Amino acid sequence: MKTAEKTPDNQVISTAPFPASKKVYLDGTLHDIKVPMREISLHDTQPHIKGMKPTANPSVTVYDTSGPYTDPSYQVNLEQGLPRNFEKWILQRADVGYLDEISSEYGLQRKNDQDLDAIRFPNLRKPLRALKGKNVSQMHYAKQGIITPEMEYVAIRENQRIAEIAKNDVNNKGLLHQHDGHSFGANTPKGHITPEFVRQEIALGRAVIPANINHPEVEPMIIGRNFLVKINANIGNSAVSSNIEEEVEKAVWACRWGADTIMDLSTGKNIHETREWVIRNSPVPIGTVPIYQALEKVNGKAEDLTWELFRDTLIEQAEQGVDYFTIHAGVLLRYVPLTAKRTTGIVSRGGSIMAKWCLAHHKENFLYTHFEEICEIMKAYNVTFSLGDGLRPGSIADANDAAQFGELETLGELTKIAWKHDVQTIIEGPGHVPMHLIKENMEKQLAHCGEAPFYTLGPLTTDIAPGYDHITSAIGAAMIGWYGTAMLCYVTPKEHLGLPNKKDVKDGVITYKIAAHVADLAKGHPGAQYRDNALSKARFEFRWEDQFNLSLDPDTAKSFHDETLPAEGAKIAHFCSMCGPNFCSMKITQDVRKYASENNLDESEALEKGLKEKAKEFTEKGSEIYL
Amino acid sequence: MKTAEKTPDNQVISTAPFPASKKVYLDGTLHDIKVPMREISLHDTQPHIKGMKPTANPSVTVYDTSGPYTDPSYQVNLEQGLPRNFEKWILQRADVGYLDEISSEYGLQRKNDQDLDAIRFPNLRKPLRALKGKNVSQMHYAKQGIITPEMEYVAIRENQRIAEIAKNDVNNKGLLHQHDGHSFGANTPKGHITPEFVRQEIALGRAVIPANINHPEVEPMIIGRNFLVKINANIGNSAVSSNIEEEVEKAVWACRWGADTIMDLSTGKNIHETREWVIRNSPVPIGTVPIYQALEKVNGKAEDLTWELFRDTLIEQAEQGVDYFTIHAGVLLRYVPLTAKRTTGIVSRGGSIMAKWCLAHHKENFLYTHFEEICEIMKAYNVTFSLGDGLRPGSIADANDAAQFGELETLGELTKIAWKHDVQTIIEGPGHVPMHLIKENMEKQLAHCGEAPFYTLGPLTTDIAPGYDHITSAIGAAMIGWYGTAMLCYVTPKEHLGLPNKKDVKDGVITYKIAAHVADLAKGHPGAQYRDNALSKARFEFRWEDQFNLSLDPDTAKSFHDETLPAEGAKIAHFCSMCGPNFCSMKITQDVRKYASENNLDESEALEKGLKEKAKEFTEKGSEIYL
Repeated sequence: MKTAEKTPDNQVISTAPFPASKKVYLDGTLHDIKVPMREISLHDTQPHIKGMKPTANPSVTVYDTSGPYTDPSYQVNLEQGLPRNFEKWILQRADVGYLDEISSEYGLQRKNDQDLDAIRFPNLRKPLRALKGKNVSQMHYAKQGIITPEMEYVAIRENQRIAEIAKNDVNNKGLLHQHDGHSFGANTPKGHITPEFVRQEIALGRAVIPANINHPEVEPMIIGRNFLVKINANIGNSAVSSNIEEEVEKAVWACRWGADTIMDLSTGKNIHETREWVIRNSPVPIGTVPIYQALEKVNGKAEDLTWELFRDTLIEQAEQGVDYFTIHAGVLLRYVPLTAKRTTGIVSRGGSIMAKWCLAHHKENFLYTHFEEICEIMKAYNVTFSLGDGLRPGSIADANDAAQFGELETLGELTKIAWKHDVQTIIEGPGHVPMHLIKENMEKQLAHCGEAPFYTLGPLTTDIAPGYDHITSAIGAAMIGWYGTAMLCYVTPKEHLGLPNKKDVKDGVITYKIAAHVADLAKGHPGAQYRDNALSKARFEFRWEDQFNLSLDPDTAKSFHDETLPAEGAKIAHFCSMCGPNFCSMKITQDVRKYASENNLDESEALEKGLKEKAKEFTEKGSEIYL
Repeated sequence: MKTAEKTPDNQVISTAPFPASKKVYLDGTLHDIKVPMREISLHDTQPHIKGMKPTANPSVTVYDTSGPYTDPSYQVNLEQGLPRNFEKWILQRADVGYLDEISSEYGLQRKNDQDLDAIRFPNLRKPLRALKGKNVSQMHYAKQGIITPEMEYVAIRENQRIAEIAKNDVNNKGLLHQHDGHSFGANTPKGHITPEFVRQEIALGRAVIPANINHPEVEPMIIGRNFLVKINANIGNSAVSSNIEEEVEKAVWACRWGADTIMDLSTGKNIHETREWVIRNSPVPIGTVPIYQALEKVNGKAEDLTWELFRDTLIEQAEQGVDYFTIHAGVLLRYVPLTAKRTTGIVSRGGSIMAKWCLAHHKENFLYTHFEEICEIMKAYNVTFSLGDGLRPGSIADANDAAQFGELETLGELTKIAWKHDVQTIIEGPGHVPMHLIKENMEKQLAHCGEAPFYTLGPLTTDIAPGYDHITSAIGAAMIGWYGTAMLCYVTPKEHLGLPNKKDVKDGVITYKIAAHVADLAKGHPGAQYRDNALSKARFEFRWEDQFNLSLDPDTAKSFHDETLPAEGAKIAHFCSMCGPNFCSMKITQDVRKYASENNLDESEALEKGLKEKAKEFTEKGSEIYL
C-alpha cells in the first residue's frame, strides 16, 4: 500500500462529512461509552404571514455507520488503523489473554514471509483469545445476566434519540406521529430499547452483536428481528481483479453510505493481507466465508480440502478479528441429489465447494461433522455463526424446493447446537424467489431456527433483469425485511455479470438502505417515520437544501435538482423543473394554508367555515401569492 | 422540427433492432390483422460429452411495445407519422364520419396561426367523430357481443405464443414449468387468452382498450387485472424545459424499453403542436391531463377556468387522437378541508388546480357537475377515462387518509355513470404508501369501483430517498401489481427533483418493467415464467450472449459484463469476473451433471446411486473438467 494513499488529503479514502451534518457522541449511563450519531441541522420554516417570526425546525439525528472517517476532528491513518475503543472493555472482563504468537500455521507462515512485507499491514498486534475454559461470546454474558458495554452501546444506537425528541420537542409532535405497523409477531418495545432488552434478546438467541475480541475497532451493532433492519455490503477481490487499496476504500465507502456490516469475499491474491487492512480500518463488523480462503490454499481443488486445513483457516481469521463466519454446514450429502433437476443447480460458491467435496469423498460434510469443534473456536473469540444457505435457489424456477428447505431444517438443528455452546448465530437465506413465495421462507426459518436472526440475499424476484438486480432484489428484500428478516445482504447492479466497482457498491448500499427502511416503516419500528416526516415537511415548505440533506444520498438529490435549475435562487424557489411555477401542487396548497393562518383559524375550520370568504379573497387579490 | 432530425440515419430517433431479435407478425383468425412481437433467437446448448451433438434452444417470443421503429424494413418518416393500420377497421364499422373541420375553437385557432407553421406537424388530417347517436367505445361493441379487431389483436398479443410453444416444444417442457401463483381473486384463464374472453372483460368494465378513433397508428393493448400488468411512462415539457424533438424521441425511446402507454404531461409552450407530433408517431396509446392545457389557456389562473373552456380542450385533444384523459372529477368541495392537516397537502397537479377552483368559486368541481357531458365526448371518439386521484397522498404520513379514500368512493360512483354510457374507465391510485398499507388501497378500489382497472403511481414506500424514487416506488408498484393493479405509472429517479431526461426515462421504464413482470410471476400469469426459465438456463450453461439478449436491457447487461472481461472469449467462458474460474458455483455444479450424462443415467439417480463411483472418478481424473 503506497503512502500517498494513506492520507485523507489525497481523497483516496472518502472522509468528507455529510452536508449540514455533525457527528455527535452520546454517553452511556451504565458504561463509559460514546455512541456516534449524525445530527442533521435544518433551516427555519418561513412564516405564512409577513412580519411573523420563522419557526425553527429541530435537527434530525440519524443512525451512523460511517465511523470516524466523517468526523473532521479525526486524523485518518490507515497504517495505524482505527482507534481500539473496545479493547479496554474486553480486557476488563478478565477472561482473555494476549497470545505470544498467532496460533494458526498459515498465519505464521504469511507473517514470516518477507516477500509480503511491502503489502503487509505494518502495525500487527498480538491476538487475544479467551482464557482456557472461558467463553467470551456476548450470548454467554447475556445468559448470565451481564449487560456488557456492547449491549448498552447498541441500545443507545438503536434509539436514535427518539425519546429525547419526544420529551423536548412538544411543539413538534406531528413529526413523531407514525402509522401503526404490522410486524408479523415481532416484539419490538413500543417506546424505547433498553440495555436490558438487548441482553434478553441476545440471551434468547433472537439477536446477535458480532464483535470479535480481536476487532476492538468495531462500533458495536445488533442484528435481530426486534431491532432496525440492517444491511450488509460485500466487497473483495477475485482472481480476475485484485487490489488492496481498492478493497479498503470500498469498505470505507460502503460504511459511508450505510453498510452495517461488510463481508470480505476475496478469492484472489493476498487474501490474508487484504483482510488485515480491511479489519484494522473497518468501524463495522467484518464477515468472511473461510472456505474461500481454504480453497485457495489447496489451489482451487475442492477435493483436497481437509478439516485440519479448514480449522487452521478459522483460527487464522479469528485471530485477525473477523466478526462472523459463513459456515456451509447444512450442505449434507443427502441433499445434493435434490439439486440435480434444478434449473441452476447449486449457486452458492461455498455450497458448491462443499457439495463437490462430499461427492469426491463420499463422506458427510466435514463442517457438519466437526461442528462442535467449530463452536469451540467461535466462543474463544466471540465469532458469530452465519450458517450459510449453500443450497439456496439461483433462479425463480428453483425457489422453495426440497433441497433448500431440507438444508434450512439442518441449519435449525445446528443453531440449537451453537446455542448449547452460547455461540451467537444467524441464518442465511435466499436467493431467487418470486414475491408470492417469499413469506414461506420467513415462516419456515422462524419455525426451524428458533427465531435466530435471518440474513437474506435479496431475494431477487425475477431472473430477467441482469444489470438491474439491485432493484429486482430490493423488492424481495423489502418484503422479507417486513416479514421479519434482520439483515439484508445487498445485491449490486453487477450481480451475475462482474465484480462491483465503487459506483456499484454505492448503488447497492443505497438501494438496500431503502429496502431496510421501508421494512422498518411497515413493521412500525418506533421512530422509523420521523425522518420521512421531516423530509416531507421540508419538501412541502420548499426547503430544498433540507430535503437534500435529509435524504439517503444528498449528493445525488442535489445534483439531480441542479441539472435543470443550478442557480442558488432555485434552492428556495417554490417550484422545480418538473412542473414549473404554475403547476406546483404544493405551492397551490400553500395558498390555501396561508389563508387559514392569516385568519388565525384552525386550518380545517378555516376551510370548512371560510370557503365563501376565501372565494372572495381569491377573486379580489389574485391568488398567486408566492409569485 | 428540423429535417435533419426526422431521418433514422442521424440516430436522433432510436431505431436499432434489439440484438439477436427479429420482428415477427402474427396473423389473426377472425380479422386480417398483424400482431407484432419480438423473437429472440438463442444459441445451442453444448453437450456435456465430446462427440455428442449440441441441443438447439427454441427462440423466445416477447411482448413488444417498440412499434415499427425496431423493424429494419420500416422507413421512419416523422413528418408522415406511423402507418394508420387501424383506420380501415374503424371505417368499416360505419359508425364514424370525417369532419370537414376540427370542432374545437382553440384547435382551429392554432391551425390558422401561421406563426406556428414552422413547428406544426405537416400532414394534419381531418378528424373522425362518431356519427350522431353512435357510440364508438370498445365497451359499447363488447356489450353488444361484437369482437372487434382490436380485441382479437390484444388477445394474440397477450398470449406471447405460449400455446404454440407448448404444442411444438415437447422436449423443452421444463421451460414452460412455473410456480402456481397467488392472484388475490383475479380470474385470468389458465391456458390461453381468447378474443371472446377479452370481449367479456371489456363488457364487464374489468379491462379497457384505449384506442381513440383518431389514433389509428396505435397498436392496440389491453389494461385489466386479468391480463399482463402494464406500465405507463410520462413525458412532456414544462415551462422550464421545452423542446418538441426531445419529447418525440422520449416517447419512441420509452416505447423501445417497454412503455405500454405514454402520458404527455406537457405544461410548457406549444402543447398542442407537441402533442400532435407525439401522437402521430406513437405506436402506444397516449394519455393526457387536459386540465393542464386548460390552465395554460388561462395563463395559470385556476380560478379563471370554465367548463366551456375545458370542454373545448377535451374536444381539441380527442380530435387529435388522445386515447385516455385523466379527469379529476372526484376532487369534491367537501374533501378539500380534509387535506388541511396533511403533511404535504394536495400533491396532484390536477387535484390542486381543481381544489383551488372549487375554493375560489365556492362551487362544486365542474368536472363532477358536467360528468355526463364529458361522457358524451368520450364515447364519440372512444377516449377512455382515467379518473384522477387528485387527493392522493404525497408523503408516508398522509397515506390512506379520509381525503384519499373519500375521493376513491366518488370515483366509484363516477365509474358507474361512465359505464352507463359504455365509456371505458380506469381509476388512478397513489402515491406515497408504506408497504403494510398498500393492500388496503387495492381492496378499497376493487370494492368501490366494481373491478374497473386500477392504475397507480408507484406507490412510493418511503420519502427519504429523492434521487432513487424509481426504486422506492418499484417496491410498492410490484406489490400493488401483485394485489391486482392493472397498470403502473412509472416514477423516474428525478421524481421530486426535476424533469426526467432520456436516461431517467429509460431507468424508470426498465424499473417498472421489472415491477410489472414480478407481479405477473407472483400472480402466476400463464407463461410469465418462461423468459425467466430461458434466461436462467442460458446463465447456467454459460451462454452469455443469450443471457444478455433475453434480459430487459441487453445493452447494459453486456456492457457491465465487458467492463472487466471485454475479450470475445469471455462470452463463452465458464466463469465471470465476480468469482473467477475456481469459484464459479455453476461450473462446479456442471461437473456433477457431466458425470451423470456420461454414464447415461438419470441425473438424480446418478447422484443417488453413483456417489461412490463418482468419488473415485474425481480422484483419478481430477475434476476441473472445463478448464
